[in-house]
Amino acid sequence: MRFRLLIEYDGTAYAGWQLQNGQRTVQGEIEKALKTIFSKPIRVTGAGRTDSGVHAREQVAHFDVSSLSDAVKLTRSLNGILATDIRVLNVEAVGKDFHARFSARMREYRYYLSQMPQALNRNYYWHIHFKPDLERMNAAASFITGCHDFKSFCRAISDVENYLCRIEEAVWYKEGRLIVFRIKADRFLHGMVRALVGTFTDIGRGKLEIDDIVGILKARDRTMAGQSAPAKGLVLEKVYY
Amino acid sequence: MRFRLLIEYDGTAYAGWQLQNGQRTVQGEIEKALKTIFSKPIRVTGAGRTDSGVHAREQVAHFDVSSLSDAVKLTRSLNGILATDIRVLNVEAVGKDFHARFSARMREYRYYLSQMPQALNRNYYWHIHFKPDLERMNAAASFITGCHDFKSFCRAISDVENYLCRIEEAVWYKEGRLIVFRIKADRFLHGMVRALVGTFTDIGRGKLEIDDIVGILKARDRTMAGQSAPAKGLVLEKVYY
Repeated sequence: MRFRLLIEYDGTAYAGWQLQNGQRTVQGEIEKALKTIFSKPIRVTGAGRTDSGVHAREQVAHFDVSSLSDAVKLTRSLNGILATDIRVLNVEAVGKDFHARFSARMREYRYYLSQMPQALNRNYYWHIHFKPDLERMNAAASFITGCHDFKSFCRAISDVENYLCRIEEAVWYKEGRLIVFRIKADRFLHGMVRALVGTFTDIGRGKLEIDDIVGILKARDRTMAGQSAPAKGLVLEKVYY
Repeated sequence: MRFRLLIEYDGTAYAGWQLQNGQRTVQGEIEKALKTIFSKPIRVTGAGRTDSGVHAREQVAHFDVSSLSDAVKLTRSLNGILATDIRVLNVEAVGKDFHARFSARMREYRYYLSQMPQALNRNYYWHIHFKPDLERMNAAASFITGCHDFKSFCRAISDVENYLCRIEEAVWYKEGRLIVFRIKADRFLHGMVRALVGTFTDIGRGKLEIDDIVGILKARDRTMAGQSAPAKGLVLEKVYY
């Protein structure tokens, strides 16, 4: 029997989503909790990896168990065991054809920045000390929508077959005291959103020209793009199926 | 010379706004930081007290100093000294006629609840295990707008001349996963918003009738109203001048 989990987490205290030896990870904590409940090891498959310090509003994962279980009771049990910075929002029985990673059509990330200091959201934004020009950044963002090779925005150590991503939406806007970058795509490469945010903010502060983004994409060279923006501002918002 | 401070804080680690012997309070921390900067004790006057564990998005305060100071530099110095759960958003020179408490025309509080557990906002909401009927709660809330005696919603130990408050707005609505109660009034009594939220949620879950609120107001007796909702869900959102 397959269950689908909807999970929110504050990544501040975790070495990312994915299981790693000797590190506290979100996947690791959930697998430990499931082991406690079912008295045997259970492998959890997530929709996507998030890096160390990155958050998720709605990460999706699945796991298989042989015995029937009450989904509502399982939600409560998991939240009773997990630390409060990881919350299971929903558990749902799904068919065997559902796969958290391969069935996902699209992922949405948001990156939060602010020039003003924040107390309540202090772990979820990048405090910038410059005034970015959102119009310039949106003009540049329009160049990345559609299907492009994002090798220039992928961490060099990544081992993937190709670097093609189809960007559905890439937009900068204001929300209260925050500046938000929202990006939806069929897939994301390792470190891609943070490299994009670093590059767009370079454009927004005049260190790069708007159409420099075209040349950077063409170069297929990570050293051409801007520096990675800090992990704490990045949230995996939603996975679409 | 008088300065006006705009302050955001996460009240989780503080025994409220107001100075208290031997307790860590927001006012106390700000006065300590000012003492470090100006090398002498400086009294800070806030727009209103917030209880232990209550947060503020835009608390306002003022203080007087004899020497001229650069407001931007002062903002940075304060934030450099204060813990990151208190942030000074703005410092501004104001006239001597400005008084953070007495010049305030209106205050706005919001109270946040959720039936769904929350990870990212875990310190800023009340996790409820019932489904409140917002329509009933809004019908009841309409009875408190205008000028009323709120003695039934005031902590018994309060020493005030009268209990009259003019409620400009009291409304329940949904915002994403959260249920929000927004209330604006010329003044608030001690523990008033939390007592109102406890009473409205009793109406929303059917423990009280909608028009019971009228009898509770009339009674002028704190024991007639509902239990106080937890401090962590309450935020002083704004002070109007």
